[in-house]
Amino acid sequence: MTMKTLSRLLQGLDSFATPRTAHAHCDLPCGVYDPAQARIEAESVKACMEKHNASTDDVFRARAVTIKEQRAELVKHHLWVLWTDYFKPAHADSHPGLHELFWKATKAAGQAKQTNDVAVADDLLNQIGEIDRIFWETKKS
Amino acid sequence: MTMKTLSRLLQGLDSFATPRTAHAHCDLPCGVYDPAQARIEAESVKACMEKHNASTDDVFRARAVTIKEQRAELVKHHLWVLWTDYFKPAHADSHPGLHELFWKATKAAGQAKQTNDVAVADDLLNQIGEIDRIFWETKKS
Amino acid sequence: MTMKTLSRLLQGLDSFATPRTAHAHCDLPCGVYDPAQARIEAESVKACMEKHNASTDDVFRARAVTIKEQRAELVKHHLWVLWTDYFKPAHADSHPGLHELFWKATKAAGQAKQTNDVAVADDLLNQIGEIDRIFWETKKS
Amino acid sequence: MTMKTLSRLLQGLDSFATPRTAHAHCDLPCGVYDPAQARIEAESVKACMEKHNASTDDVFRARAVTIKEQRAELVKHHLWVLWTDYFKPAHADSHPGLHELFWKATKAAGQAKQTNDVAVADDLLNQIGEIDRIFWETKKS
Amino acid sequence: MTMKTLSRLLQGLDSFATPRTAHAHCDLPCGVYDPAQARIEAESVKACMEKHNASTDDVFRARAVTIKEQRAELVKHHLWVLWTDYFKPAHADSHPGLHELFWKATKAAGQAKQTNDVAVADDLLNQIGEIDRIFWETKKS
Amino acid sequence: MTMKTLSRLLQGLDSFATPRTAHAHCDLPCGVYDPAQARIEAESVKACMEKHNASTDDVFRARAVTIKEQRAELVKHHLWVLWTDYFKPAHADSHPGLHELFWKATKAAGQAKQTNDVAVADDLLNQIGEIDRIFWETKKS
Repeated sequence: MTMKTLSRLLQGLDSFATPRTAHAHCDLPCGVYDPAQARIEAESVKACMEKHNASTDDVFRARAVTIKEQRAELVKHHLWVLWTDYFKPAHADSHPGLHELFWKATKAAGQAKQTNDVAVADDLLNQIGEIDRIFWETKKS
Repeated sequence: MTMKTLSRLLQGLDSFATPRTAHAHCDLPCGVYDPAQARIEAESVKACMEKHNASTDDVFRARAVTIKEQRAELVKHHLWVLWTDYFKPAHADSHPGLHELFWKATKAAGQAKQTNDVAVADDLLNQIGEIDRIFWETKKS
Repeated sequence: MTMKTLSRLLQGLDSFATPRTAHAHCDLPCGVYDPAQARIEAESVKACMEKHNASTDDVFRARAVTIKEQRAELVKHHLWVLWTDYFKPAHADSHPGLHELFWKATKAAGQAKQTNDVAVADDLLNQIGEIDRIFWETKKS
Repeated sequence: MTMKTLSRLLQGLDSFATPRTAHAHCDLPCGVYDPAQARIEAESVKACMEKHNASTDDVFRARAVTIKEQRAELVKHHLWVLWTDYFKPAHADSHPGLHELFWKATKAAGQAKQTNDVAVADDLLNQIGEIDRIFWETKKS
Repeated sequence: MTMKTLSRLLQGLDSFATPRTAHAHCDLPCGVYDPAQARIEAESVKACMEKHNASTDDVFRARAVTIKEQRAELVKHHLWVLWTDYFKPAHADSHPGLHELFWKATKAAGQAKQTNDVAVADDLLNQIGEIDRIFWETKKS
Repeated sequence: MTMKTLSRLLQGLDSFATPRTAHAHCDLPCGVYDPAQARIEAESVKACMEKHNASTDDVFRARAVTIKEQRAELVKHHLWVLWTDYFKPAHADSHPGLHELFWKATKAAGQAKQTNDVAVADDLLNQIGEIDRIFWETKKS
């Protein structure tokens, strides 16, 4: 465990984007969380949009819309879990925009179901990026 | 674990400003995959074991076992998806142990449901680490 | 819609407990929402606690805990959906405590998984009652 | 809608002092049931049809059909649960048409997946209304 | 178990080259149904009971109860689907006890969640066997 | 049990389509498995294709594609479970092509989501047939 802790510290020093140990969730709580879960699904949402827009095959396009719907739902779920389960009152105090950020990000995921406009997916990814930044900041402190 | 940690650190150094594309999955296929999904759930499995073993509260322990069961099922699912959907015949040719590796890793996830022995979770995490290594190797080529 | 509004007003006048037009949700959006979905599951959470506490049968008690876990997860889901999908910026402006209310209510649902203390379920039900009150207030305006 | 509104108003008048406990379900059994769960989803089914029929956007219409499919499945599930879990032999004896009613209502929910004819959703809602009426009658006795 | 083995052998002899049309379900409707889906899960329910009863390991027993709960839920689902989706008014006319049979079988599946008494699982399997008999009879005609 | 066994034997005599003792799965493990689960869903996949191809109704065709997607996912799931949970190292030793067979079969199920070409479903069914053959062979030994 010492090596892992050390590696975390070094990672913290050398990059914003180091391949981080990923963290998940359960309501035990097991204490394992990671915004990567939401981001991965959001990237899938974006890819579905791109593939939809590049295709002229009706069946393929219908499947892209349906699958995007499912992945966007997963984005919402992972974000909701982070918001309710990981973040504590002290975090909300030090990050006054936290609730608004999650509200907008989950709304963006809902919007991503309704459109194939890649800009919506990019906006969603940016908001998840902001959540990710705050998340790791709170993990450090 | 030392080698893995070291390789992670080195990855950290040379991917400095490289926001790693996170990789998920859908069967469109959207082309987004990432072994992190399995690893995150496996870390949750391990945490459930640790919290179970550290507790003397019967209700808590029962919940830990049930939740671990669910997370381990997700590990299996994410690994199966990678195996069937991401890996192609050319990958199997260049990595002859690929099938065996996935078979053993998913069996380890099944075993992790049946025990609270952390060594089983560590073994599972190691196998996912090996899958992760192969995955990124194939992404590069 | 006038008739429906009228009917609501009359219902309001003649009872505390009139069978209200129930409202659900989908992300079409279909526009159908109803806090009753969360409340129903929360009542189930409370009943699981009560039955757990009244029983001395180990298997029954274990089942009560596991089932409570599932119903509490549904409470969270229904509340998250209301928060993200039904409520609009104008609502948040006129109800400044809205985010905090939902955050605490979903946290209470998480807590209800971890305990058999009926007071936690009552607290959860009270918060859902408050959400219900605001919800119907916004429907009127 | 006028007839339905009227009937609702009358219901409201004569259940005046009946503090309706909302009722959900689990197979503990927790004893919490409520036909509102089925009705809420059925209202969503109907709204999906209406929105589908009012739109000329192909993607929107496809989403409406897919989402309706999911909500109709939930209608079936909630009705099946009521039928099997809530109703007891004594109820079936005093309501000889009970099985037939549930059979037709769940068949109507299946049909609602296959069409965008709002009359099918109205028929489904009427049957759920009948089930609701019987349900509350049995709760009283 | 010897009788069962014998029956398998006899089956092996005479169904040698008989690719049995398997029957599943979807609400397209695709027209594919098979009571085997319910029976398979019910056999799993029974096996969970037997393994539970033969074990003295608390964790194992708790897992057996939880998993049995899930398989019994699947039994109910598969039976409900058969009842609502496969069977038509003409079948109900020629098999007047059909509704009662399904009601009791799904109630038995609910009961199987609440006990580890193998007799309940056997009763459930017998009722599924009766449903199976009627099902294939209606397929022939 | 004797009566049931006897009736099973008699059933076996009067038909080629004997209700084979079906086998399912859970990760207890309960020891109940049966390739019929995968085959039933695969037949549903094929039926969805056939009904899709025979129809000119856009809504129906879209539903067929979406439902096929779900059933094909179930095929994959049931096959993965068999591969990881039922088959043991000794089986893999005596059937060297086992991993490859499951890999191709699950890939075929993925392909079946992407096409309405019945040949793909037939290929999938053939591979499941081969798995079924090996499965029962291993049960005998």
